[in-house]
Order: sequence, then structure tokens, then C-alpha cells
Amino acid sequence: MKYAAGVDVGGTNIVCGLIEETGRVVARKKYATAPERGSAAVLEGIAATVERLREDAGIPADDLEAIGLGIPGLLDPERGISVRAVNLGWTQVPVAAELQRRLGKPTYIDNDVRMYAYGEAIAGAGRGARYVLGVTIGTGLASAFVQNGELLYGHRFMAGEIGHVPIEHFESIPCNCGRIGCLETVVSATGIARQARTRIERGERSSLAERFPDLSRLRSVDVTEACLAGDALAKDVLDRTGRALGAALAWAVPLLSPDAIVIGGGGALAGDALFVPMKSELDSRLLQDYKDQFVIRSAELHDDAGLIGSALWALARGRKALHT
Amino acid sequence: MKYAAGVDVGGTNIVCGLIEETGRVVARKKYATAPERGSAAVLEGIAATVERLREDAGIPADDLEAIGLGIPGLLDPERGISVRAVNLGWTQVPVAAELQRRLGKPTYIDNDVRMYAYGEAIAGAGRGARYVLGVTIGTGLASAFVQNGELLYGHRFMAGEIGHVPIEHFESIPCNCGRIGCLETVVSATGIARQARTRIERGERSSLAERFPDLSRLRSVDVTEACLAGDALAKDVLDRTGRALGAALAWAVPLLSPDAIVIGGGGALAGDALFVPMKSELDSRLLQDYKDQFVIRSAELHDDAGLIGSALWALARGRKALHT
Repeated sequence: MKYAAGVDVGGTNIVCGLIEETGRVVARKKYATAPERGSAAVLEGIAATVERLREDAGIPADDLEAIGLGIPGLLDPERGISVRAVNLGWTQVPVAAELQRRLGKPTYIDNDVRMYAYGEAIAGAGRGARYVLGVTIGTGLASAFVQNGELLYGHRFMAGEIGHVPIEHFESIPCNCGRIGCLETVVSATGIARQARTRIERGERSSLAERFPDLSRLRSVDVTEACLAGDALAKDVLDRTGRALGAALAWAVPLLSPDAIVIGGGGALAGDALFVPMKSELDSRLLQDYKDQFVIRSAELHDDAGLIGSALWALARGRKALHT
Repeated sequence: MKYAAGVDVGGTNIVCGLIEETGRVVARKKYATAPERGSAAVLEGIAATVERLREDAGIPADDLEAIGLGIPGLLDPERGISVRAVNLGWTQVPVAAELQRRLGKPTYIDNDVRMYAYGEAIAGAGRGARYVLGVTIGTGLASAFVQNGELLYGHRFMAGEIGHVPIEHFESIPCNCGRIGCLETVVSATGIARQARTRIERGERSSLAERFPDLSRLRSVDVTEACLAGDALAKDVLDRTGRALGAALAWAVPLLSPDAIVIGGGGALAGDALFVPMKSELDSRLLQDYKDQFVIRSAELHDDAGLIGSALWALARGRKALHT
């Protein structure tokens, strides 16, 4: 059996894993990123963790075939460089070269959302589909597209952005990007919590008002729980969020023609409360030819999707490089 | 020098061409499709035309390397089958196998818009770019995306549809697809002519009113001419059309991240009258990261784009097949 290491590098936590070529996770370790240590120390930590995991699992060094990392922000997967990762404080960090030097294995980096989508496409909810659109509803909203096991990159490797288009007929909220009314202000874990907070502050009734005297502590997961417990405001917030996402997917589906859409991230935990209005809005906006041509599934691999995706992608890239 | 034949199959006309591997057209012939003859006769005609062009150009049979065809409608490029082409009256026609049998050369078929975009991407206005979004504003509105010389296909090879999403804040016109307010009802040659007709019928003043006592004869090219001659209504129609296209591109650009957008088809002949409002609307809706990261160009190859695209694509596919 051959193995690859997959690493999901976040601003808060790093998750390192050893993955069988089948996609099975044989070992994982999660620890604080502590980016203030600087990129060299963070990469040294990753190298040491991968080595430790491999030794503890009793895997011979020769059976570890490649290393893959999913990294947020702007990056260049061809040259293996993290161009700009704000949460990590990284600029022009040659991640692949540094880890390859330390571990002596072919090392590949890619965007964290692409690696998440690749993991779900190959080994998760998109298994068996050929054209997988992965969408993550987290702090922000992001997507990536996998066609026949290849990734859609676009110029500067920046394809997949769906969160920052202004949406008509919804709220006009200032977005982190500096503009007004972006989709992400509604469709994100942050947006779900914000909608509930704003409406309670305006005097709407909700069980969340009593549970959160300090509304700044209200999170999207609380909205989901309140909805499941029958709270009408929480239900309406998720309904609006789902419809906004459906309107956005009405652009993405005919442009990409996926046969599977996999939706993950914290915001997706709302399940049907989000998915039913999303599908209804999408269906009402979709050309007949595209209806019933794709499945919509919740992500299956959750926190492991990025690990598995980056490990399997590194294996695929490494093996392709050997044959060209 | 090696050559390929490129064939642009339309419901009204067929254009056959012989193309150098450099993309230069060495011979072409345009003739009426006459689809009522049936698919066998149409394909027999194409085979005979390709043979005649080759002989007349004095090209040895061995130097003709492949045949490529761009065909409208739903098709399966992997199996070489035209699944459904309404304007041709074709259903499940095995085009590639039939022509390969008749001409003895590897034959490939693909969607006409993809072949148009591929031609422009490789040998036209997108030359030098790696991620080319081709948009054609003709009877309808369509698009195709070329990433590093590969095509974005999607499930059932149906990626690239942008004409049939309802657009907010524009007109609510019944669309050919049976729904209301699709982008294509505004952004198409048909849509441009219809907007002008409707507004004149409602009593708005325009030089077009005198020129066309029978408004049903008014075409989009007349709107373009009137605009260039200073007609305010024509200018406003193109302005609205451009803004609607800009709003649509605001979804496509971050999702695909093109470094070049090539816009062709009859509707694009309006030039700046369409392009300036389009760019302005797109810019106002685009995340900073994507601004100034792509060029927008008018198509260069015009009627030859489909020919050149299908010939070069056939060469590329044929050579790739030899090496795998």
C-alpha cells in the first residue's frame, strides 16, 4: 500500500494526516497553527508532524509517496508558492520547495477550497460523479469545480469565487470586501448569524433572544438548532439564505453543468432547512435541460475532506509527472 | 505541412475549410445545408466537399490529418454522435463514424460554440491567453471556456449556457425556452432588434421608425447602424443590452477567472456602444481581485472561427490520442 500525507493549513489550526491511496485516513493530528512563529517554524512543524505520524503508524519511508497541502488565500500551485495568505501572514512563501527539502518527497500545494472539493469529489459525496461543484458555506462562501478528476483553475488560479457578486432583492449589507450586498453577506455562517442578530435587534421575536442576552455570541449553529426546535425566525433566516444560494447556483449550474453539487462547511449543517428553499429557488430559475441532471448532496468527509483531497491530489499529480 | 478539414455545420449553411496546422485557412466553401435531404446526404455532401477542396488545393491525401466538425445542439464528442440538433432535424446521428468511414481520417465533432471559442482562443483574439471565455451574441447567447487548450465540458457536455438565467431589473419578456425574462431575451441579436421594435411600437421616437414602416424587418445590425448615426433610442437599446451582459459576466468571471473574454457574433458588431456599458456594469459588480486581470476583445476570426477551431481541435485530439 502506498500513502500520501495531506495537510490542511488554516489560520487557527493545522490538521496533518496520513492517507492510503484508497482515500482512507490512517492517522491524523490537529494542532494550533500559531502563525506568529513565522512560516519557517510552521513548515518545520508540519514536516516533523508528518514524520512522527509516519513512524508511529509503522509506515516505511519509501511507502510515503507524496505530500499535499491545502492552503487558504492566493497561491501558485505550479510553482508551489503561497502568494498571499492573510490569516497566516504569509507572502511569497515557497511552501512546496521547503517541505520537499525537509521530507525528500514530491510536495504539492493548492487552494484549501479546491482540495476540499477534490476530496469530496474523489472520496466523498461526489464519488462516482464526473463534474463536481463543491461549495463551502463557512466564514465565507467559496466553490471549486472538478472535471474528470482535473481542477478548474482559471487565471492566477482564482476560479471558483461565488461569494462576491451583488445579489438583487436581498439585503444591502456592507461586505468584508468593501462593497455592498455581496452574496456572502447572506450565504455564510457569518451571514446566517448576522441575519438572526439584526432581526432580533430590530425587535422580531425568537427563542434566540432569550438564549442570547449578548447577541454577539450567537452563531450560525445556534440558528440551525433553533430552527430544528421550531423557531420561526430561525427558519425564515435559513429559508432566505437557501434561496439566495439557489439564485447564485442558477448562474453556476448552466455555466459548469455539474452532475453533482456537494455542499459543506458549517452553514451546510442546517440541512433541509437550507437545502429545500435552495433547490426550490434554483429549480425555478433553471433551464429545463439542466433540471434533474445533477444531484445535490451534503459533504460527507467534513473535517477530513481537505486532508484527503490534498493527499490524493498530490498522489495524482506526482504520478502524472512521472508519466510525462 | 499538415492539414485538417474544419466544418461549421449550421441549419442554413455549411462551411467547409482546409486549415494548415498553423491555423491559416487555405481553402473554404460555403453552401446551403438543405437539411431536408436527410443526415446521410448532408454528410455525403460534406465528405465530397472536403475531398474536392483537398484535390483542388493540390494537397496529398496523406497530408490531411484529421476532420473536425462544429455542430449545434446537444452532442456527445466522446462517441462522435449528434444527439439532438433541432435546426438540422438530427437525432442520434453518428457523424464522426460516418465521415471517418467515408474519408478514412480520424474525425471529431464538438459543439459549434465550443469550436468557435476554441478557434478564437488558439488562433484569434484570445491568442496568448490561457483561460479564454468565448461569448457569442447571435440569434441566442452562448459561451464556452478554454483552459490551457482544454475545453470545459460539464455533464452531458452542456457547460457554457449563460443565456437562460432570469435577470432582475430588466424586461420580463417570454423567452423561446418557455420561461420569462431570460438574459437572452435582451442580450442577443434577436433581443436587440426586439427591444428597438417594442419601444418604437410604444411610441418612442427613432430614425428607425421612418426607415422601417414594417418593423418586423428591423434587424440588430440596423440598430447598430442607427446608433452610429446618432439615434438616441438605438444607443439606449445597446446600452441596456451591454449592461445586462455585464451583469451576467459578473457571475461568470469570478467563477471561471478568464484572462481573456472574446465576444463575437452579430450582436458584438455594435462594438463600443455595447462594450463600454458592459465593462462599466461588470466593473461595478466585480471583486477587486478580478479587476484588470483580463482583457475583453472583439472576435477576430468571425465566420472562420468555427472552421479553424474545429480543424485545430481535431488535430489536437488526434495527436493526443496517438500519444496515450
